[in-house]
Amino acid sequence: MVVSLKDVAERAGVSAKTVSNVVNGYRHVTPATRRRVQQAIDELGYRPNLTARHLRAGRTGIIALALPELNNPYFAELAEEVIDYAAGLGCTVLLDPTHGRRDQEVLFVRGVRAGLIDGLILSPIELENEDLAERGSEAPLVLLGEREYDAPYDHIAIDNVAAARTATRHLLELGRRRIAFLGARHGRTRQPAHLRLRGWREELAAAGAAAGDDLVATTDGYTRADGARAMARLLDSGAAPDAVFCYNDLVAIGAMRTLGERGLRVPEDVAVVGFDDIEDGRYCAAALTTIAPHKRAIARAAVDALLARLDPARTPPPDSSRRIRPGFALVPRESTLGRP
Amino acid sequence: MVVSLKDVAERAGVSAKTVSNVVNGYRHVTPATRRRVQQAIDELGYRPNLTARHLRAGRTGIIALALPELNNPYFAELAEEVIDYAAGLGCTVLLDPTHGRRDQEVLFVRGVRAGLIDGLILSPIELENEDLAERGSEAPLVLLGEREYDAPYDHIAIDNVAAARTATRHLLELGRRRIAFLGARHGRTRQPAHLRLRGWREELAAAGAAAGDDLVATTDGYTRADGARAMARLLDSGAAPDAVFCYNDLVAIGAMRTLGERGLRVPEDVAVVGFDDIEDGRYCAAALTTIAPHKRAIARAAVDALLARLDPARTPPPDSSRRIRPGFALVPRESTLGRP
Repeated sequence: MVVSLKDVAERAGVSAKTVSNVVNGYRHVTPATRRRVQQAIDELGYRPNLTARHLRAGRTGIIALALPELNNPYFAELAEEVIDYAAGLGCTVLLDPTHGRRDQEVLFVRGVRAGLIDGLILSPIELENEDLAERGSEAPLVLLGEREYDAPYDHIAIDNVAAARTATRHLLELGRRRIAFLGARHGRTRQPAHLRLRGWREELAAAGAAAGDDLVATTDGYTRADGARAMARLLDSGAAPDAVFCYNDLVAIGAMRTLGERGLRVPEDVAVVGFDDIEDGRYCAAALTTIAPHKRAIARAAVDALLARLDPARTPPPDSSRRIRPGFALVPRESTLGRP
Repeated sequence: MVVSLKDVAERAGVSAKTVSNVVNGYRHVTPATRRRVQQAIDELGYRPNLTARHLRAGRTGIIALALPELNNPYFAELAEEVIDYAAGLGCTVLLDPTHGRRDQEVLFVRGVRAGLIDGLILSPIELENEDLAERGSEAPLVLLGEREYDAPYDHIAIDNVAAARTATRHLLELGRRRIAFLGARHGRTRQPAHLRLRGWREELAAAGAAAGDDLVATTDGYTRADGARAMARLLDSGAAPDAVFCYNDLVAIGAMRTLGERGLRVPEDVAVVGFDDIEDGRYCAAALTTIAPHKRAIARAAVDALLARLDPARTPPPDSSRRIRPGFALVPRESTLGRP
């Protein structure tokens, strides 16, 4: 005899929806109800077959989330938000680290997992416009992050130029005048200038402060090691910055490590601002001032946008891509303000 | 016309196996071959249906990896290793954060994703022996980490007692005598003493050094915030440690933050040792001395053990559970040795 969800619901004395919530691991079930449902499941030997269920509906119930790397806490924190929110909507999330490699990103947008997933959320690093133009896959795709594309896909990103201007203004208001930018991307291909670099430049120009190339340090990636090396190069170059605005918190943490090794004090000698508000930054010797993107809002917007494209009743015309801009906030801490 | 993998192979002039490697996103394909195969896929409009393919084989090709949280870099780093290694073997990994909650862990071992996954790798925090005894699911299960169980499942863990003794011995050899343990778990239920706590105690006893309860600080979890609070409590208690061995690197990073706030120098006043060798530790103001478990070996052992259980030709008798002990190493850095 095949035991159905309805059988379990009857035995447990709850609705089929509640059984479904328990089976799908949602959090919005009281422990007592969860125990009762689990007991009924055990007694009846009920085994939900999620794959079969979704396949009957022409969907797998799985969405892919392709991020550069889980080792970057920003992406790990964002992934947790996406997984939690998607679970509440009945979706399972498949995490795919791309390592920021163009060939991996191309594979994903071309539908390497076609048949397994209903749609894809991608945070690209190296992907180019032509990769999207030549995509060939019809699975819904939502883009995340700073890279800009001329392609008909929903794109979720905070206003990176405004955020960078906010960070730079904070340093200007503290009286800093030689504010360096750490983490301009240095790649084989000619990439568009980073929006964060543009924001830094615009704000400095508006204030009449120095914004020369001698104050811009490129990096190969956005890791702590990249930040440490770039800071060392900047100091060795004689640029003599009194502040650095870093592409992200990891780069900032690496930069602070180098400053410490050189005997320079943060923020007295060099003030430091990061970007991402990862937890690590709060526990540095000088807690890190940073730009905090609203990660939960980003995660929700991405999942909502993808699911909207999957819902035949709600699907917008295919060429109507949307730009969604979740909020951000400056979080001033000791790396610019000093210890109270 | 349905385009087959063989059609693609013929068009690209490669073997079907190579097409399969490209489709599955394996890394062991040269860029030139990948491009040729991708071009053939595009020209023919080939769309692999992974789900259907695996279902025909009675498997989904998906294994679940249930970890406490991706926000702990140790688990993020371990997850990347598992995903990479599994991909090379044709498996997709579904990441499930449990938040270290017993109800979530119970759901997973009971087979919440039955039908979707072939097997499960779980790193439990709160799961109890009886939860495994009452499991009811037949999907292969492999356990990771410090918790010990009387249950017939393969268990992958480094020798935590030996690792803790190694860390403690390092501090003793540096002349420290009041070595505290930070991160004994404090829960509602009576849990077995941590193996790491036991190793700390054994090594101190062998050296005739103090190992009283006044030197043990409990925590609710293993985050930086837990470490910062526990360190503050320990200092306020008057225990006057000259060293702390911490349950993990996050707890150690939190502890160092508190030491800094109190004006205590690391390692001159208090030496600190962590556990996990996460990247964060290397970039602290005093780079963190730690125990480095061999993460790649752990990931490989876990995937291999699970796949062995899935292979009918290789499956050992169901009651033959194995204990696999990957290696570890002490990595001495500035938080015990000082700056060179």
